[in-house]
Amino acid sequence: MQTKKFDFSRQSVQYYFDASFSDLKSIAPQAKTIVITDEHLFAAHAKKFKGWKTIVLKPGEQFKTQATVDSVIEQLINLGADRQTMLVGVGGGVITDLTGYIGSIFLRGVAFGFVPTSLLAMVDASIGGKNGIDVGVYKNMVGTINQPRFLLYDAGLLKSLPETEWRNGFAEIIKHAAIKDAAMFKQLESASLKRFQKNKPDVQALIKRNALIKTKVVLNDEFEKNERRLLNFGHTLAHAIETQYGLTHGEAVAIGMVFASGLSEELLGFRHHNRLTKVIEQYSLPTELSFDRQKVFDVLRSDKKKEADFMNFILLEKIGKAIIQKIPLNTLFNYL
Amino acid sequence: MQTKKFDFSRQSVQYYFDASFSDLKSIAPQAKTIVITDEHLFAAHAKKFKGWKTIVLKPGEQFKTQATVDSVIEQLINLGADRQTMLVGVGGGVITDLTGYIGSIFLRGVAFGFVPTSLLAMVDASIGGKNGIDVGVYKNMVGTINQPRFLLYDAGLLKSLPETEWRNGFAEIIKHAAIKDAAMFKQLESASLKRFQKNKPDVQALIKRNALIKTKVVLNDEFEKNERRLLNFGHTLAHAIETQYGLTHGEAVAIGMVFASGLSEELLGFRHHNRLTKVIEQYSLPTELSFDRQKVFDVLRSDKKKEADFMNFILLEKIGKAIIQKIPLNTLFNYL
Ligand SMILES: NC(=O)c1ccc[n+]([C@@H]2O[C@H](COP(=O)([O-])OP(=O)(O)OC[C@H]3O[C@@H](n4cnc5c(N)ncnc54)[C@H](O)[C@@H]3O)[C@@H](O)[C@H]2O)c1
Ligand SMILES: NC(=O)c1ccc[n+]([C@@H]2O[C@H](COP(=O)([O-])OP(=O)(O)OC[C@H]3O[C@@H](n4cnc5c(N)ncnc54)[C@H](O)[C@@H]3O)[C@@H](O)[C@H]2O)c1
Ligand SMILES: [Zn+2]
Ligand SMILES: [Zn+2]
Repeated sequence: MQTKKFDFSRQSVQYYFDASFSDLKSIAPQAKTIVITDEHLFAAHAKKFKGWKTIVLKPGEQFKTQATVDSVIEQLINLGADRQTMLVGVGGGVITDLTGYIGSIFLRGVAFGFVPTSLLAMVDASIGGKNGIDVGVYKNMVGTINQPRFLLYDAGLLKSLPETEWRNGFAEIIKHAAIKDAAMFKQLESASLKRFQKNKPDVQALIKRNALIKTKVVLNDEFEKNERRLLNFGHTLAHAIETQYGLTHGEAVAIGMVFASGLSEELLGFRHHNRLTKVIEQYSLPTELSFDRQKVFDVLRSDKKKEADFMNFILLEKIGKAIIQKIPLNTLFNYL
Repeated sequence: MQTKKFDFSRQSVQYYFDASFSDLKSIAPQAKTIVITDEHLFAAHAKKFKGWKTIVLKPGEQFKTQATVDSVIEQLINLGADRQTMLVGVGGGVITDLTGYIGSIFLRGVAFGFVPTSLLAMVDASIGGKNGIDVGVYKNMVGTINQPRFLLYDAGLLKSLPETEWRNGFAEIIKHAAIKDAAMFKQLESASLKRFQKNKPDVQALIKRNALIKTKVVLNDEFEKNERRLLNFGHTLAHAIETQYGLTHGEAVAIGMVFASGLSEELLGFRHHNRLTKVIEQYSLPTELSFDRQKVFDVLRSDKKKEADFMNFILLEKIGKAIIQKIPLNTLFNYL
């Protein structure tokens, strides 16, 4: 186990890398802790939850809602939770988002920590303190920015992770490489999904490297005024197509990255569009989609990052270097 | 108008004393502002809301719930609210608590400010950043601590305030005097509710003095580890009897203060129990209640401020000086 502490503006976060779920006992006082997880995790790792008071939620984005929050709060009250209670979210990004949100509002805030269990939650969702729930069709419409006390990484938990979820995680890993880490990009080019799945030390190192990339970005800009927006690379288009075309998040981000990379070539002379496309394919993610141009454009326009006739878009100058660029809406439309 | 700025840990708050509602236009950009108020205010001051996008809620504590939050969020979405939107709560403590809470979670936090309209909200509820909603029988079970951008004080709004609500406000004013301000206590002794109601400059000065007392306490201890708990003087018993005996908050606090003051006499030799009782009567608040000792004790025990067999109780050493004292539960029971 390797520990690292990062000081965010309102809270220090302890990271436990290469740890084991069983270390949780020495981090969260069992008598005062309530674990929040979902049915998939609870079924796949039943034994690990023995001895922990546990609230088990239905899995999936469709349960990242106020109704679930209401039900968890009712259960917390019934379990006698008080200000000394610590919540620990054990799960993918849905569970860490829900746990962080509930921990931020229950009794005006109690301590909470995360054991991310999906690759995506390990490298992305559990890091940075953003939490929240969806409201109708609007994703993450309600939430707070509030850091957890700790993150416990146990790569062993990934054994039960479905194949699609591995790919979703790699979409964000490729994103990190593209915007921040040319060396890791090369590493991804010379490896494969299978190899990482079979090699625990490699995947542990990869998780740690990615967790640190995101952490550094957030430390520089916790409340998303600037650099943190780079993490939206590939996500603007992704948000416009994900639900509409029934894609997984990873698939949508992959297509979004290919689009943004093409646009980068066009507008900034970015020279590695083909490399990015290739590495995306290599991790079994899609690189194109035929979509209804006008419909997608209309959704894009209503995106929160829009300012009048321009839109802030994340582009690549080169592999490992992203910038925020104001793009006229009609340029965007023509390129779609 | 007199302005003062206070720097809380995460936010500066601008106070506009002796201001007028019409000053709001120069504080909150009308085009980007959404006002939240209740039907009483909207009916009593209809003209003032002209030109402001306004969400009008049903009045009363029974609407300080998630259902109201859900409905406000839906309306915000329909009104096209975005990250640049500012929410302004115009109302009593229910409205400022709701507005502060919604402002803290909508889009992970947007700017918000308050125009407190009840005496209680002016001297207490709108100050200090605590916000939240009730969950079933549990008051303020969910919320955050997050400061508003500004507080605008217009004592003219009190013209329409019902008599009971004046008394509720004075319960907190007497509380402030008892725990922090012996000079103000004397002033209250030599005045009356009627006199303040008839004399705008006096009530303005009183509001300001009380707002500053609470502000100072909160500045010293924003996240309620210590001094802020003094503001609970009279409130421990109050919480146990308010709903059970159908009292107003002010009535319950008045009885709670008399109880705590008697206990202070018993345990600390506090010598002004009679003065406190008398001033409470002077402002038309009750000083006693016959209640079911065992029932009230059972509710008291389940109070959040309890630690095993002791309970933290706020007592008076003298007028203007309160302390936090650990009291054995059986002492409390005997004294009830
Ligand atoms: N807060 C942030 O900064 C942030 C960043 C990115 C994404 N997110 C959020 O994260 C969510 C997506 O995260 P996700 O993909 O982890 O979603 P998820 O929690 O739905 O997990 C995906 C699926 O994998 C299952 N699963 C997770 N770990 C498993 C394991 N070890 N074994 C077996 N099954 C497992 C889950 O039960 C679920 O069915 C979205 O709601 C998104 O908004 C948040
Ligand atoms: N956040 C805090 O620190 C804090 C502190 C104390 C109390 N509170 C909360 O404040 C609430 C109590 O505040 P309140 O007594 O102001 O409650 P309230 O908002 O219910 O107001 C009391 C009544 O007076 C009416 N009213 C208010 N101003 C008026 C005016 N100018 N003219 C006519 N009618 C008017 C309201 O419509 C309501 O009917 C409770 O929910 C309590 O939990 C919060
Ligand atoms: Zn993503
Ligand atoms: Zn009170």
